[in-house]
Amino acid sequence: MKNTFLSVAVVALLSICMSSPAKAEVKKVDHAISETEVLDAQQDWCNALIDISTTYAEDGHAEAKALAEEIIDSAYGYQLGTVLFKPTLTTEPQTFRTTSRGALSYFVGGDDNFPDDSGFALNDWNKCEPENAAIFIAGNTASTIGKVHFTDVDGDTTSVDKSWVFLKDDTGQLRIMLHHSSLEYDGQ
Amino acid sequence: MKNTFLSVAVVALLSICMSSPAKAEVKKVDHAISETEVLDAQQDWCNALIDISTTYAEDGHAEAKALAEEIIDSAYGYQLGTVLFKPTLTTEPQTFRTTSRGALSYFVGGDDNFPDDSGFALNDWNKCEPENAAIFIAGNTASTIGKVHFTDVDGDTTSVDKSWVFLKDDTGQLRIMLHHSSLEYDGQ
Amino acid sequence: MKNTFLSVAVVALLSICMSSPAKAEVKKVDHAISETEVLDAQQDWCNALIDISTTYAEDGHAEAKALAEEIIDSAYGYQLGTVLFKPTLTTEPQTFRTTSRGALSYFVGGDDNFPDDSGFALNDWNKCEPENAAIFIAGNTASTIGKVHFTDVDGDTTSVDKSWVFLKDDTGQLRIMLHHSSLEYDGQ
Amino acid sequence: MKNTFLSVAVVALLSICMSSPAKAEVKKVDHAISETEVLDAQQDWCNALIDISTTYAEDGHAEAKALAEEIIDSAYGYQLGTVLFKPTLTTEPQTFRTTSRGALSYFVGGDDNFPDDSGFALNDWNKCEPENAAIFIAGNTASTIGKVHFTDVDGDTTSVDKSWVFLKDDTGQLRIMLHHSSLEYDGQ
Repeated sequence: MKNTFLSVAVVALLSICMSSPAKAEVKKVDHAISETEVLDAQQDWCNALIDISTTYAEDGHAEAKALAEEIIDSAYGYQLGTVLFKPTLTTEPQTFRTTSRGALSYFVGGDDNFPDDSGFALNDWNKCEPENAAIFIAGNTASTIGKVHFTDVDGDTTSVDKSWVFLKDDTGQLRIMLHHSSLEYDGQ
Repeated sequence: MKNTFLSVAVVALLSICMSSPAKAEVKKVDHAISETEVLDAQQDWCNALIDISTTYAEDGHAEAKALAEEIIDSAYGYQLGTVLFKPTLTTEPQTFRTTSRGALSYFVGGDDNFPDDSGFALNDWNKCEPENAAIFIAGNTASTIGKVHFTDVDGDTTSVDKSWVFLKDDTGQLRIMLHHSSLEYDGQ
Repeated sequence: MKNTFLSVAVVALLSICMSSPAKAEVKKVDHAISETEVLDAQQDWCNALIDISTTYAEDGHAEAKALAEEIIDSAYGYQLGTVLFKPTLTTEPQTFRTTSRGALSYFVGGDDNFPDDSGFALNDWNKCEPENAAIFIAGNTASTIGKVHFTDVDGDTTSVDKSWVFLKDDTGQLRIMLHHSSLEYDGQ
Repeated sequence: MKNTFLSVAVVALLSICMSSPAKAEVKKVDHAISETEVLDAQQDWCNALIDISTTYAEDGHAEAKALAEEIIDSAYGYQLGTVLFKPTLTTEPQTFRTTSRGALSYFVGGDDNFPDDSGFALNDWNKCEPENAAIFIAGNTASTIGKVHFTDVDGDTTSVDKSWVFLKDDTGQLRIMLHHSSLEYDGQ
């Protein structure tokens, strides 16, 4: 029986060697976005919000602002030129935050140029859940629409309607190019 | 002088013939979206809304509904699978209109399956103006964010925050794949 | 201990039921190309060539031509406007086959407009193997470069250098938009 | 008359002020490729070849190699992972140059790892003309197929069949991601 096993193993090895004569590795560049990457990018955004919120509670505003700056730099596409960002709670003439400074102010406030911003990420959030209604993967960009549910440390929940467009950049990282967030219509 | 002119003309013709030996036309397929195409698609959406509104006022609901159906079929991408559509005035659990039937109901109402829809296009609109804050052309898709200003026959104006993602389809036509519309935040 | 286990299980089940209250299906449109789809499209091209060759041997030229016409219609993108096709064995001024008629003639010959075409698919092929050197997936298009090895019924093998660009069309099908095939350089 | 002029100027200024109430500039990111950009990128490739050839003749191999390195870095997409490059005159097992080192060796030779490369760019070229048969712009990528005609300082011309796929990178620059070049089939 031992011999039989060895024979089978040898034949298997031979057949592997003969059918794969040292083929060169296929080189690949892949700019397509998968659904998993989209879901991960959404969850990353949620996790980042909780991180900023927790950092603010534990380490103060300066630390939270530094973290927010870092996150905006890596998760959004401002360095590509602009981002199409309509945060939930902004008003004219500063509704759209097409610069990273405007985005930073929305998340952590404290910028005299944006006097109405109190800092959305500073609201004691401890849970953030995306819930997609629909996804459109165009290729190297992907669009999503749905709800995001925020829960603060007191257990109070806020839901918003949210659209995102993600771009896979040259390094393979997903970046937010469009972000439209709005309060739910109250039906009145 | 006449002779000189003729000589020059003959040389010119010869040089044309010799330098351009019946070059074949370059065949082209272009799926890239230009900014002009984006602006035209936005204006087309606005014009369609006014058309439906006017048709309703002049010819009644059945005509307006037929026109809306036609417009949704040609301007949106429902036949590609779905559209990421969050209209301005919808509520849970029918916030997102991922089917053409849901879109039709939003614009002209009268569908028992969507009892809260009164028909957004039936509000006597006679002016509709897009105002972009930012545009991201990814290639064969383009995203926009900004305001759309609606004026009705009484001169009353409503402004909404609006994001669109357009896809250039295989026939070269732009189709709306994402449409997120929301009332302006009242700052409260 | 058994009871404890049961209690834990019941709590777990309850928490699953309560946290997932009949979530609506997420609607999806996906125009991104996966590597698997690229490899399948290459193999489909190979299989189609063998099919045409076999059909010619068994059923004659008319059947082979009809099959080739069908395959070109479904595998290439001529109906999108043109295809960037440089077959292996074409010469000036008919090197590039930017029309489906030119492609058909290359594969099965018999067209007086392309007198040099003898029909590449009619050469008794019975094996066709793509071997990629590199793949670039841009999103809704993908490019490949490498060898294709053809073996005829006598066991003779021909290898060519081949590039393809595939497009995922609106229906989700991959279509060849560029096809450049060339004999191996003989080093002289 | 002076008064009239002033009145006109005032009215003009007023009308400018009233009709353009300080509209914010629309921010833009455009990753779509235009036909002009494609043609420019092809011509850039040709000009680069002539530059390397001229530098070799005037300044020697080291200078030509340094220039070629710089050009490959900026014109090809090797830093994105790989390039699908099949030069005109390469043979197995080094047909495909998926690394920048392999591309550099093809253009200027002198690399022991690629012993068959004599340096294509060192052949006294002084003219290089692309001639497209067809172009497919997919969005942020574009494919071309056609001839490139090379003329050396003695007036001898060589024509090759050439396919390119260009990608517009995150900085807006076109980079070659696929390059398939082949000698014309001699019809034998």
